[in-house]
Amino acid sequence: MQQHCRDPVVIVGGGFGGLAAARALHRMQGDIVLIDRVNHHLFQPLLYQVATAALSPADIAWPLRTLFRSQRNVRIMLDEVRGIDRAGRRIDLRNGDPVPYGCLILAPGARHSYFGHDKWEEDAPGLKTLPDALEIRDRMLMAFEKAQRLNGTPDARDELTFVIVGGGPTGVELAGALAEIGRKAMTPDFPVLQDAACRILLIEGGSRILESFPPALSRRAQASLESLGVTVLLNRRVQEVNSKGVLAGSEFIRSAHVIWAAGNVASPILTSLGVPLDSSGRVMVGPDLSLRGDPWVFVIGDAAHCLSSEDKPLPGLAAVAMQEGRYVAEIIARGIPAERRIPFVYRDRGILATIGRAKAVAQFGTVSLSGMVAWLAWCFVHIFFLIGFRNRVRVMFEWIWYYVTFKPGARLIYWKERRTKEP
Amino acid sequence: MQQHCRDPVVIVGGGFGGLAAARALHRMQGDIVLIDRVNHHLFQPLLYQVATAALSPADIAWPLRTLFRSQRNVRIMLDEVRGIDRAGRRIDLRNGDPVPYGCLILAPGARHSYFGHDKWEEDAPGLKTLPDALEIRDRMLMAFEKAQRLNGTPDARDELTFVIVGGGPTGVELAGALAEIGRKAMTPDFPVLQDAACRILLIEGGSRILESFPPALSRRAQASLESLGVTVLLNRRVQEVNSKGVLAGSEFIRSAHVIWAAGNVASPILTSLGVPLDSSGRVMVGPDLSLRGDPWVFVIGDAAHCLSSEDKPLPGLAAVAMQEGRYVAEIIARGIPAERRIPFVYRDRGILATIGRAKAVAQFGTVSLSGMVAWLAWCFVHIFFLIGFRNRVRVMFEWIWYYVTFKPGARLIYWKERRTKEP
Repeated sequence: MQQHCRDPVVIVGGGFGGLAAARALHRMQGDIVLIDRVNHHLFQPLLYQVATAALSPADIAWPLRTLFRSQRNVRIMLDEVRGIDRAGRRIDLRNGDPVPYGCLILAPGARHSYFGHDKWEEDAPGLKTLPDALEIRDRMLMAFEKAQRLNGTPDARDELTFVIVGGGPTGVELAGALAEIGRKAMTPDFPVLQDAACRILLIEGGSRILESFPPALSRRAQASLESLGVTVLLNRRVQEVNSKGVLAGSEFIRSAHVIWAAGNVASPILTSLGVPLDSSGRVMVGPDLSLRGDPWVFVIGDAAHCLSSEDKPLPGLAAVAMQEGRYVAEIIARGIPAERRIPFVYRDRGILATIGRAKAVAQFGTVSLSGMVAWLAWCFVHIFFLIGFRNRVRVMFEWIWYYVTFKPGARLIYWKERRTKEP
Repeated sequence: MQQHCRDPVVIVGGGFGGLAAARALHRMQGDIVLIDRVNHHLFQPLLYQVATAALSPADIAWPLRTLFRSQRNVRIMLDEVRGIDRAGRRIDLRNGDPVPYGCLILAPGARHSYFGHDKWEEDAPGLKTLPDALEIRDRMLMAFEKAQRLNGTPDARDELTFVIVGGGPTGVELAGALAEIGRKAMTPDFPVLQDAACRILLIEGGSRILESFPPALSRRAQASLESLGVTVLLNRRVQEVNSKGVLAGSEFIRSAHVIWAAGNVASPILTSLGVPLDSSGRVMVGPDLSLRGDPWVFVIGDAAHCLSSEDKPLPGLAAVAMQEGRYVAEIIARGIPAERRIPFVYRDRGILATIGRAKAVAQFGTVSLSGMVAWLAWCFVHIFFLIGFRNRVRVMFEWIWYYVTFKPGARLIYWKERRTKEP
């Protein structure tokens, strides 16, 4: 390696970006340290299926150490980053000693943002981690148990009213999955409840859902959601969330289960960099994804504010993060100095969102797909990008099983059980 | 149904016994109410594989409501039994209204017993529920992470010393599984640790492990464990357990991870019956498994003290519970009065315990098996008794996968994560 970039290369975050970068550096001499708060890489695009009991955590997560078992130049560190000391060129950790870095790739991702109303989180959990998903799964399954017990009372109605805030891909996929499990899989197990007893509302502040898709596909996605019994409310800003429900626009919707899929804010550790952040806490990076004046510190993925060719910030997609990871890895591997770097360009291979069984929308370049075709494309792409033969087989098996039997496999309530044991 | 037994038939507990009873009553007129604290039936014989990251919770658990979706006379109630009011012939619940019963089948099972040292539980968790298993899995996986960080220090050694108290099937299977995952699956992912760094000790108070098996098989099981690197300590009574380790006999063994598999005590709800209990809190039932003087209240499974033909209490096995459940169900279905009942007889179809890959012991009548043959028998029996095609396929797949790759699928740490979020 040439002098500008000394090792070790430290990568913060084992998500799509960090993973892609670490793998692309497999031939590099010298140490790579991959730091993550959890011991596994999570396939976030399918997390909503864990939250809706279709998949198990182990189906969409993979231990980081196993992923890099054969890549000897990577050292995994399970720890929480406290902050980045750029003067001392080291990472401060919660448990271990500070880790010095020669060059640094920051891929810490984002959490959901409540736009300054953090107290809403208690009543409107978001969906970013496995614990988030198991929390939502537990609440969803318990809702039917409570509704069965309270059957006929207004409380029963609130228990089975699910409100999802945010009409982006996560919100849409979650709404569709909840409608399917709620009306097709759960109600047969609760004879006293009618299918219609389970209400799902999707609240979007803008004028259409999936605004990253062409308007025609947004309309089709909305029609598909409605055919599953989801009520889609557009142009509704959320004013208030509490244990009774949510105030959307001027209407208060009573619901015991509000789920937040409205906005993201990048990891707080970025504030310790002392560089300009955008309104979502993302780092304003240069065209080479590095910090201005610090050419060997890179930020990628959901944590980076990187402008597209149309001068809009790139969306928070796995594809973006992976391409950024590989781009940065090449700069580091070849030790390209700042002045000789070609700006990062995102190659858009298309976007997909699934609504339910045989229902999806997809956009590949100028080609728009919807319905069964888009759904099959979605299944294929997600199976393909899953890591490891084992997970592919398991997920494919679960999907076929669910598709045929409508008995999702993971309807287990045990998360809260742990809680009640807390001192 | 004849007058002695009025409906509803209330079954407390959805384990092997309660499930078998409810299913055997599928043709009965009138209501059956199945009450359980959790929403799923758990295949406990494989729980240790969840604790050792080989299987996922959803592989060995099945929602009770789905199991009885097609059996219309069964009503599932997710609630906790507070007590049994025999005078009022009703069950008091934690959340719902009291449930009246015409006849009652109590199958509440057992928890692990600390022989009066309940404070040991914090430092020596047992293994009965999914939360127990995920707690142990988390501790086990975190142990290697900590040991990696503390490498070389005495603390690192304690972190990788696992002590299992109790040489019964659970203890033996857990010790074998820990040895395999610890030495074969984990250490390759932790380059700084040697295989030998992971020590597993199995402590038994008696003179041999698996004392329900013939002595020859106990010896073979011990030899198999030792070949996996497990240290078996016999004739060691546990005097004390604390966060530093365990005092076994006169020796204090330093260990950060003590797991309790030593004893059982039947569910505390049985005390509300006001009938004689044995030293393990089990109800002394009559030869027809009913309470003396209350012929339509039955106790089955781990909660019942029922004498075998050799005048010893029947062991706490799934097979016993299932046979008892079917026996009681027939009495109820046919409304057989107390005086005309044929005493329950347990048909012993054999016992099995697995130690590790291709290592097991089995006793069928007079036939003793060990090694590969016994292991295949064990696999077959457990796959066969698993409920549902889906789980059979998943578990078989996981086992083949693990057998071939030594990469157990469920090495995910997320349980404690939830805890740290507690207020």
